Amino acid sequence: MKEKLSVVKIGGNVIEDEKALDNFLSAFSRLEGLKILVHGGGKLATQLATKLGIESKMIDGRRITDAETVDIITMVYGGLANKKIVAQLQSKNINAIGLSGADGNSIQAHKRPVKQIDYGFVGDIDGVSSELLKNLLSINLTPIFCALSHDGAGQLLNTNADTIASEIAIGMASVFETTLYYCFEKKGVLLDITDENSVVKNIDTSKYKELLSKGVIADGMLPKLHNCFHALDNNVEKVCLGDVSMLDKNTKLFTTLKL
Amino acid sequence: MKEKLSVVKIGGNVIEDEKALDNFLSAFSRLEGLKILVHGGGKLATQLATKLGIESKMIDGRRITDAETVDIITMVYGGLANKKIVAQLQSKNINAIGLSGADGNSIQAHKRPVKQIDYGFVGDIDGVSSELLKNLLSINLTPIFCALSHDGAGQLLNTNADTIASEIAIGMASVFETTLYYCFEKKGVLLDITDENSVVKNIDTSKYKELLSKGVIADGMLPKLHNCFHALDNNVEKVCLGDVSMLDKNTKLFTTLKL
Repeated sequence: MKEKLSVVKIGGNVIEDEKALDNFLSAFSRLEGLKILVHGGGKLATQLATKLGIESKMIDGRRITDAETVDIITMVYGGLANKKIVAQLQSKNINAIGLSGADGNSIQAHKRPVKQIDYGFVGDIDGVSSELLKNLLSINLTPIFCALSHDGAGQLLNTNADTIASEIAIGMASVFETTLYYCFEKKGVLLDITDENSVVKNIDTSKYKELLSKGVIADGMLPKLHNCFHALDNNVEKVCLGDVSMLDKNTKLFTTLKL
Repeated sequence: MKEKLSVVKIGGNVIEDEKALDNFLSAFSRLEGLKILVHGGGKLATQLATKLGIESKMIDGRRITDAETVDIITMVYGGLANKKIVAQLQSKNINAIGLSGADGNSIQAHKRPVKQIDYGFVGDIDGVSSELLKNLLSINLTPIFCALSHDGAGQLLNTNADTIASEIAIGMASVFETTLYYCFEKKGVLLDITDENSVVKNIDTSKYKELLSKGVIADGMLPKLHNCFHALDNNVEKVCLGDVSMLDKNTKLFTTLKL
């Protein structure tokens, strides 16, 4: 039987709020078994850019990453957010180790080709070094990923943290029974966006198609759910969507996705 | 017989200069055998602080590290400098992994007690996890340390990179035949500060005392040489001081220190 592994992604709004982050990291530290954390940096990068007088350019909610911006993201995601999370987890007896995709060549990517839009230094993932992660986990380390990959030619690349989480889960699924958790501000997929408790508890492939056709899954949930089913299609055991209480298993109000 | 290990510290002036950094990293990548790199961030932290309107306070050349400043150092040393070095080494076929002292609990420290001066969030090192470093080296990873330690209670601490390098060398000396390299802008310890080629090639304990009494070792070289002999007194095989050409062994003009 395969050993269990949890891959947990936290949303930017948790990173921005000191108390929420501490709560989350406590819940994460209590999670049993092997685990990997993935985080972005939320609005912290935009805030630093603003202070430095650098304009943040967004198209359809995606950041245009020029040379100055990739430096800011490296500072904020790879430095401030990542090292603070690592230091705080150490104080909670988790032997955390912070990684970008360049560290240990853990996430290989290529710069997104320019079509209609030039996204700049944005990475599309080619592969994850599951061998490295297996080795780190085997010596009791807990990898903490920021949202950076690299092109192998010396360039760091801004990379969507949801995608990093699903690609890591996929990369590990051949070795571990892998559960992917997307932790965010909502309790799960909501039937009625105005009712926080209208959580759809279970979604399988046919339910997913039904919710898509009814328009229940829309806007920001579309790429999120796409990532979830992409992971399930590639041997990830299950995907859970919900707020921090989902990790502590002291609520049954979250969404579980299975094929 | 013990396996050989090189611990290399690079000076801030190399980090600040893109071409010099590339030259250095090429020389480092050609260095045979197991190796560990330690770097600070030079003036980059001061530059970012200035841009953000935060005053850099120095006393006797040492930075006073308040809460805002430790965040800046975490961004610049732990983020920008560390991840760029790691990405560039990956392009030179070195499987680099960037670490602060919090990552893998690799460098344990305590906040320097306040006596005449309150240095703020500055760390004095208590120990190095040689077991972790041995494990990382054994899976073909090359650790790249920035100048940050942690207190185990969630706080990152600004820590002198020369001291980190010597403490790592000392921590590894029981397992490896360890050489400590201090790479800086000079060719070594100079007999005459105005003559770049007046390098003292070999310094042992008695020569060290002679140079100290003659005032040849003064100012910034005093703590540097103190670090070197502290390492030698604690089982480090030898210490070399010089510029980048020392690493390539294409010069004999550098200083070697042995007991």
